[in-house]
Amino acid sequence: MSDAVTLTVEQAERLSLAVLEGNGFSHDHASAIMRSVVAAQTDECHSHGLYRLIGCVQAARNGGLDTHAAPEIMDQAPAITRVNAHKGCSLLSFEKGLPYLIEKSRHCGVSVLAINNSFHFSALWPEVEQISAHGLVGVAMTPTHAFVAPAGGSKPLLGTNPIAFSWPRPGTTPYTFDFATSVIARGDIELHRRAGKTIPEGWAVDQAGAPTTDPAEALAGAMLTFGGHKGSALSTMIGLLAGPLIGDVLGHETHAATEDAPGNPHHGEIIIAFSPETFLGADAQKHLDHAEELFERIIEQGARLPSQRRFEARERSAQNGVTIPKVLHDELTALAGV
Amino acid sequence: MSDAVTLTVEQAERLSLAVLEGNGFSHDHASAIMRSVVAAQTDECHSHGLYRLIGCVQAARNGGLDTHAAPEIMDQAPAITRVNAHKGCSLLSFEKGLPYLIEKSRHCGVSVLAINNSFHFSALWPEVEQISAHGLVGVAMTPTHAFVAPAGGSKPLLGTNPIAFSWPRPGTTPYTFDFATSVIARGDIELHRRAGKTIPEGWAVDQAGAPTTDPAEALAGAMLTFGGHKGSALSTMIGLLAGPLIGDVLGHETHAATEDAPGNPHHGEIIIAFSPETFLGADAQKHLDHAEELFERIIEQGARLPSQRRFEARERSAQNGVTIPKVLHDELTALAGV
Repeated sequence: MSDAVTLTVEQAERLSLAVLEGNGFSHDHASAIMRSVVAAQTDECHSHGLYRLIGCVQAARNGGLDTHAAPEIMDQAPAITRVNAHKGCSLLSFEKGLPYLIEKSRHCGVSVLAINNSFHFSALWPEVEQISAHGLVGVAMTPTHAFVAPAGGSKPLLGTNPIAFSWPRPGTTPYTFDFATSVIARGDIELHRRAGKTIPEGWAVDQAGAPTTDPAEALAGAMLTFGGHKGSALSTMIGLLAGPLIGDVLGHETHAATEDAPGNPHHGEIIIAFSPETFLGADAQKHLDHAEELFERIIEQGARLPSQRRFEARERSAQNGVTIPKVLHDELTALAGV
Repeated sequence: MSDAVTLTVEQAERLSLAVLEGNGFSHDHASAIMRSVVAAQTDECHSHGLYRLIGCVQAARNGGLDTHAAPEIMDQAPAITRVNAHKGCSLLSFEKGLPYLIEKSRHCGVSVLAINNSFHFSALWPEVEQISAHGLVGVAMTPTHAFVAPAGGSKPLLGTNPIAFSWPRPGTTPYTFDFATSVIARGDIELHRRAGKTIPEGWAVDQAGAPTTDPAEALAGAMLTFGGHKGSALSTMIGLLAGPLIGDVLGHETHAATEDAPGNPHHGEIIIAFSPETFLGADAQKHLDHAEELFERIIEQGARLPSQRRFEARERSAQNGVTIPKVLHDELTALAGV
C-alpha cells in the first residue's frame, strides 16, 4: 500500500471544495481558497498546498475566520482600491479587488489594492502572478504574526513579512520571487527542535538577545531577518506599507487563532501594480523585450531565475496530477465527510 | 596648522555653487547639486558630500554629463510623471518633477516619478526625505554600474542598486533607510586592497565564481548582494523597475565616464510616493500616530532606527557647521578658481 495518493488537478479541486464547503465556507470563499491551495499544490509548494485546508477549517471552528464574510469594495481614489475583508479570508477579497487594480493601473499607470481586516494564510506568488498574467508588474506585501526581532533587538516585533514580485514575460513563465524577510520559516526551527538538531547561527536570538543555535531557545526568543540591518529595515517598511499606510494593524498586534481562542489573526495586505503600457505607450513591448537580456545574462552565467522549480513542478503536475501524503488525504477526506 | 577646515553651511553652499558654476554648470543644475551634496555633508555622509563635486566636474570635463540640459517633463498618465534628464544630472530632474509627484500622489493616492537618461551620483535619502517632509511615504530605486553578480553567478551584471524609503513622522525626523543591495560598497573593497588587508568572506567572488577574501581578486571578479538569493532577487527587481519599466537601460549597460572616455553613465531612477491622507481620509493621522508604536517598540528593546547617526550629525552641523579635510577644501577652492 502506497503512503502517497496522486490526484488529478480536478480531483484536488473537488476535494478542496468539499472540505471547505463541508465545513461551512461559502461557495465564493471556498472557490477562492481552493484556487490558491491547488495552485500551490501543483507548484509543489506543499506548505501552502492542500495541507493548509486543515488550518483554514480549524481557524473557522475556533472563530478566527468568518466563512461567509462578503468583501466590501471601496473605490477610494483614482489609483487606490480598498477591500474590507470583514474577517474573511484575504483570497476572495483579492479576487474581487483584482479587476479594479488592473483597470486603475492601466488608466493611472500605477495603482494599489489594499486589503484590510483579512485572515491571511496564503503564499503571495499566486496573486502577483495573476497580475503579471495581465501584462502588469505586481508587488505584494503582508505583515504576519510577530516572531522576528529588529536588527540589534531581542524581542519578537516584526512579522516574517513576505514580499513577492512578478514581472511579465510574454510567451514564457514570469520572473517571480516571493520570500519572507525572516532568515528562515518558523517551521524550520520547529523541525530542528523535533529532530534534536541545532540550528545554524544567524537564524535566531535567545530571550536575552544573544545568538543561539538551540532551537528551543530560538522559539522562546526571536527569529532574525535575512540580511542583518538591511533585511530588518525592509521588514519594517513592509510592516508600515501593509499596516498603517492602509489603515491596518502592525505585525505584533496579530496572533493566530488557537485551540483555545479565536486569536486576532486579521491584518492587511498591500498589492501594487505597474502598467508598462501606460508608462511607455507604444515603446512598452520594446522595453519588455529588452528586459529579457537581463534574464538571459543571469542564466548564461549559470545562475537560476527564482521560481524555476515551481514552474517545472507546474508542468509535471499538469501531466501527472498532484501527489500528497496518504495521511493528509485521509484527513482531508474525513474533513470533507466523503 | 589644522588638517581640517570648518565651514558654515552657507559657506559650504557658496563654495559648492562656485565650484559648479565655475566649471560650466548652469545655475539651476549647480543649485540642485549643491543642495544634495550639502545635505549629505551636514549629515556627515562624507562619501556623498562636497567630495562628490570633484567627480561631477570631472564627469562634465570628460563629456559624461550635460551641464546645461533642461529636464523635459512628460505628464504621462494620471499617476505617472516622466522626466527626461537629457544626460544632465538627475537632481534637477527630481526637483522639477517633485511637484508633479506630490500633486498626483495626493490626487491618485500613489504616483510614480520616472527620471530617464540621467547622470546619477547622489544618495537617495535626500529625495525620499523631501517626499516624507510633505507628509507622503517615499520609495526610490536606481540601478548603477554593474559590479555585482546574481546569486549563483560569477559575473558582474547587477548594479549596487540602492533602495531608499522614508516614512513621515510629524514633529520628528522621518523613518528613513537608504541601502545598496550589494553587501558592501565597492570603495570598501578598494580600501582593503590599498591597506593590504583581506576582505571578509561573502563580499565577493573571483573570476571563476569562487568565494574570495583577496580584494584584488574580488575587484577583478564580482561583488555579491546582501542576503544571498533574497538580496539578489531584490536587486533584480530594482534593475527592472528603474530600468525597462520606465523605458531605461539595465545596470550592465551603463559605465562611468573615465579620464579617457565619456562612458555611458546615463540611466533611470524610479520614485514612488504614497499619500496616507488619500488612502485613509480623516483616519490618516490616527494611523500615522499608530505607526509610532512600532518605532517605540524598536527603540525600547535597545535597537536603533536607521539614519539616527545622520540626524544627530544634522543637528551638530546646524550648530557648528561642516568640517572637511583641508586637502579637499584646497582642491575645491582651486576648482572654484577662488
